[in-house]
Amino acid sequence: MSDRPKTPTLDRVHLPSDLKALSDAELHRVADELRAETISAVSETGGHLGAGLGVVELTVAIHSVFDTPRDRLIWDVSHQCYPHKILTGRRDRIRTLRQKDGLSGFTKRSESPYDPFGAAHSSTSISAALGFAMARELGGAPDPALGDAIAVIGDGAMSAGMAYEAMNNAGHLGKRLIVILNDNEMSIAPPVGAMSSYLSRLYAEGPFQELKAAAKGAVSLLPPPFQEGARRAKEMLKGMAVGGTLFEELGFSYIGPLDGHDLDQLLSVLRTVKARATGPILIHAVTKKGKGYGPAEQAADRGHGVSKFDMITGEQKKAPSNAPSYTKVFAQSLTEEAERDDRVVAVTAAMPDGTGLDLFAERFPRRCFDVGIAEQHGVTFAAGLAAGGMKPFAAIYSTFLQRGYDQVVHDVAIQRLPVRFAIDRAGLVGADGATHAGSYDIAYLSNLPGFTVMAAADEAELKHMVATAVAHDAGPIAFRFPRGEGVGVEMPERGEVLEIGKGRVVREGSGVAILSFGARLKEVMEAVEALGARGISPTVADARFAKPLDRELILRLAAEHEALITIEEGAVGGFGSHVAQLLAEEGVFDSGLKYRSMTLPDIFIDQASPGDMYAVAGLNAGDIEAKVLQALGVERLESRRA
Amino acid sequence: MSDRPKTPTLDRVHLPSDLKALSDAELHRVADELRAETISAVSETGGHLGAGLGVVELTVAIHSVFDTPRDRLIWDVSHQCYPHKILTGRRDRIRTLRQKDGLSGFTKRSESPYDPFGAAHSSTSISAALGFAMARELGGAPDPALGDAIAVIGDGAMSAGMAYEAMNNAGHLGKRLIVILNDNEMSIAPPVGAMSSYLSRLYAEGPFQELKAAAKGAVSLLPPPFQEGARRAKEMLKGMAVGGTLFEELGFSYIGPLDGHDLDQLLSVLRTVKARATGPILIHAVTKKGKGYGPAEQAADRGHGVSKFDMITGEQKKAPSNAPSYTKVFAQSLTEEAERDDRVVAVTAAMPDGTGLDLFAERFPRRCFDVGIAEQHGVTFAAGLAAGGMKPFAAIYSTFLQRGYDQVVHDVAIQRLPVRFAIDRAGLVGADGATHAGSYDIAYLSNLPGFTVMAAADEAELKHMVATAVAHDAGPIAFRFPRGEGVGVEMPERGEVLEIGKGRVVREGSGVAILSFGARLKEVMEAVEALGARGISPTVADARFAKPLDRELILRLAAEHEALITIEEGAVGGFGSHVAQLLAEEGVFDSGLKYRSMTLPDIFIDQASPGDMYAVAGLNAGDIEAKVLQALGVERLESRRA
Repeated sequence: MSDRPKTPTLDRVHLPSDLKALSDAELHRVADELRAETISAVSETGGHLGAGLGVVELTVAIHSVFDTPRDRLIWDVSHQCYPHKILTGRRDRIRTLRQKDGLSGFTKRSESPYDPFGAAHSSTSISAALGFAMARELGGAPDPALGDAIAVIGDGAMSAGMAYEAMNNAGHLGKRLIVILNDNEMSIAPPVGAMSSYLSRLYAEGPFQELKAAAKGAVSLLPPPFQEGARRAKEMLKGMAVGGTLFEELGFSYIGPLDGHDLDQLLSVLRTVKARATGPILIHAVTKKGKGYGPAEQAADRGHGVSKFDMITGEQKKAPSNAPSYTKVFAQSLTEEAERDDRVVAVTAAMPDGTGLDLFAERFPRRCFDVGIAEQHGVTFAAGLAAGGMKPFAAIYSTFLQRGYDQVVHDVAIQRLPVRFAIDRAGLVGADGATHAGSYDIAYLSNLPGFTVMAAADEAELKHMVATAVAHDAGPIAFRFPRGEGVGVEMPERGEVLEIGKGRVVREGSGVAILSFGARLKEVMEAVEALGARGISPTVADARFAKPLDRELILRLAAEHEALITIEEGAVGGFGSHVAQLLAEEGVFDSGLKYRSMTLPDIFIDQASPGDMYAVAGLNAGDIEAKVLQALGVERLESRRA
Repeated sequence: MSDRPKTPTLDRVHLPSDLKALSDAELHRVADELRAETISAVSETGGHLGAGLGVVELTVAIHSVFDTPRDRLIWDVSHQCYPHKILTGRRDRIRTLRQKDGLSGFTKRSESPYDPFGAAHSSTSISAALGFAMARELGGAPDPALGDAIAVIGDGAMSAGMAYEAMNNAGHLGKRLIVILNDNEMSIAPPVGAMSSYLSRLYAEGPFQELKAAAKGAVSLLPPPFQEGARRAKEMLKGMAVGGTLFEELGFSYIGPLDGHDLDQLLSVLRTVKARATGPILIHAVTKKGKGYGPAEQAADRGHGVSKFDMITGEQKKAPSNAPSYTKVFAQSLTEEAERDDRVVAVTAAMPDGTGLDLFAERFPRRCFDVGIAEQHGVTFAAGLAAGGMKPFAAIYSTFLQRGYDQVVHDVAIQRLPVRFAIDRAGLVGADGATHAGSYDIAYLSNLPGFTVMAAADEAELKHMVATAVAHDAGPIAFRFPRGEGVGVEMPERGEVLEIGKGRVVREGSGVAILSFGARLKEVMEAVEALGARGISPTVADARFAKPLDRELILRLAAEHEALITIEEGAVGGFGSHVAQLLAEEGVFDSGLKYRSMTLPDIFIDQASPGDMYAVAGLNAGDIEAKVLQALGVERLESRRA
């Protein structure tokens, strides 16, 4: 505790309303102390550091000028919300960030009235803010009454079409709406795309407007009587102002670029906007991710996501790993395959690090495409590449592939184009919580005609599945794998092409068969060991494929065992549902089968370690053991005996 | 046949290569005859008329200048592809459009090499074209070898974020790519959004560039040695050119606006582009939907989708209807509810007519929001409205809601916001074929925690479900209903609020229970009648809810009957899968239950009448009857007897 920063001014701020009593000079001190407190907190918890540090001044300025929670402040993605949480009554719990039963690493409606709209995926804030704004126009009256709607969105998030759709609609509706573009020239990776170049040009020549000029940039906000003069003033300014026409063409007033760390400038502009705005306004603030903390500023990712660290040195405390991560195995396997087949190309939606494709891109820069935060385009672009004769691997997290679902159906599946989907972060993911859980991909892919859907039971299986996907040109194919380390199995020299639609028996037993799809296999084997002590010896099979199903294997397991239990790291509607459909269709249930299907439960599970989350889900070894006993009726017998 | 137009020049064109031998004067005649042939064909088949008539000159110009199929021509949405199909070897089948076993109403890879990338949903063309372009750059070598990639996209489609994502990526990659913006100031409805206003401004003052000026607009295409001079020429032109800066900011060269019906201008510009283009280019052509056919030009929707019609009068031949359409019942019910509750608002994504919300908007213009072709934004905007205290009804076809799937999960479900989803066109839809089938919504909604999912068995049930959705403020709720007419039941004066998660028994019987979810109930009742002749009297229940399930009803049906059959108009993973999960979990299968689940099959079904499509799907009365017999083992007994 002794190394926690001294924060005498911040200590006086319990809620944003306390900021109103402070002078601008004191607000400066609040900002400095807020930055120190944020660094200190994240050094203890780990989490998203750089993004929060970049918006310290913005956070103070917004909360001191506007009247939250009446004014609805919506942080896009919201991984930059730690300073916001400290200022909005959650400082006492800030050192529980991203931990079990602690504060979420994102904004969350159920956590605070100061979080009017939660987030975690990118580019939703303008849409949500426009919803609040139009509800206000129609007299929507929740408690508290609706004031301003303010979206803070990063430049990376502006590469997503959804943000453009929202601006297009907001410009059309023309109602008062405040969008603050937090332009740090970074999303997670350095940004890509023409919009990013455009934003850079906006301040390439004279980086920032003088305060006076910036304030003058707000002439369009003047009330009607002044508008003719204002229009002329604005035109005069055009020579010196660098631009913003793109936003103006979409119906927004543009103010900027501002120095997002110049608190005086921010306060001045926001006060003008608050007093004068009548329509949609975009305020372009340029910030520095990781601002004010050397180790973050100097890191390639500007301290995007960090482990617990030493405040002085910035050194992160990472646990030693026993096995390579699934992500790394995927990336290495794909790179090896690409050495042998020059049609292999890769697509990522702004996640080159997270997907491991940065490794692939080092070796094959021309064959790796980072399309920006743009999963819709990314999927159809991959479909176009496939139609053009390439072997595209679209490497997208399960939860983000939801953004490209219609494209998966309409552009890939219906056309049977051989796009390969490498689905990382399948299942529960830990500290990022419910918004990042990869719960639905098995269900939303396995009912698409012509799709092949695989899940890796371990890292060696993943390597085989990459090879299988390279070889499979007959239609779309997906393979999913979890976040984190593999289980430590021996790795094959080279991936083997698996037979499509064939599972493997891991262990022959009797009485009960457990059919696992994906990485729960390890837990299944633990459960089997425990069951052995009770004289129960299950057969265990790894399905490998949710589609096409290994009908022969499944029907044999059903025929030869009293009970059959499926397990998967996904929601109802996926693997188990397809197995049940097969068993029903074949009349297997007619004469009785103790069938159970273990899936993710019907709840959103808050952040914790993956193991703890799977405990909540009831999918750990102990749960599997209990399910076997329950299916066999052993538990009931035993409890009767007891 | 006698009233078919004379087309002597068109008759000489069997494939686009035949156009190469023609003079520009002859190309004019081809265009005129192509227009006449298109009108004649659609008068016999019905279909999308206005869109095709708007691109007749564009179609002739593109195919005469470029080398399809080597050059990949991609029509966005592709409902404007009829003239293209006539020119690309499919004229002999053009009068089978949208019919069973006939030509698809859209482009389709399996139909012709001149359709390199199919479509039907909007705004995918630039992504696909960019995929072809990058495959070309990497030496992707299918047959035929890759030439130019050309996307033709409407102004309505430009409101979708996906198009922006693609342009953002294309501008960044900087490779040769041709996008033709077909700007007819219409999508299906008049367009909305700031982009649309922007496009209008581009030609508001001097509607079209002179041919010379337009050609000069192509100066940016000149090879490097000329560029300095070109740059100066371009700047000189800027005074007279109306704009295009928005596209230029995104990295595209902009040429236009052109008169899209001036074939000479189109030929000149396309020839220049073909000879000179090095990077991404946007050609802005202004066209008139329905061009050249009076009845279409004068219709409010410019002849978007028509029935068979009389060529002279334009009068459409519509079959008389026996019952109101589901769409109309929805719109009327919602309007009635909105009279009583001023928090009811509605959101459509560019489909005010199709969803019936045009009726709602007439009565409540301020409470109806057309967000453009922008389902992602539309869903989250609705979530914002809900968070702001309104009762938003997002009226989106099942197939298009796929575009907003992540937003349904991330913004609506996780936050438990009471957005009401009115899901029209659920199940198989007829002439629009596989791309428009509403097959997946039951599956992709029913595994979301906290969601309520209903399906209407008839139009009276739909009215109840609208009332139920208005009343349900506890979380998100969806109700689905099919395309077309209701079944003719008596309509209640006012919708009744249904008890959440409770089904209804339609008919008590014995031996077998049929549990229907949605509009197959009519077919079920027909099957029951036929079964009566065999002495089989099934119990029939209407589940109403796929989530939450009526556990009590389902377990009772299972306990009291030898066989239980579920049926739904959706793919595996939906209602039947949740029922199976319940039955498994409760151990109902342990001692035997003849359980069957009738769903859409694992194939994409081509266009035909809905009845014919459901015959292919095996979900008509006869199929239900057969399934009952099979489950009960009657069929086998009878066939043994025979």
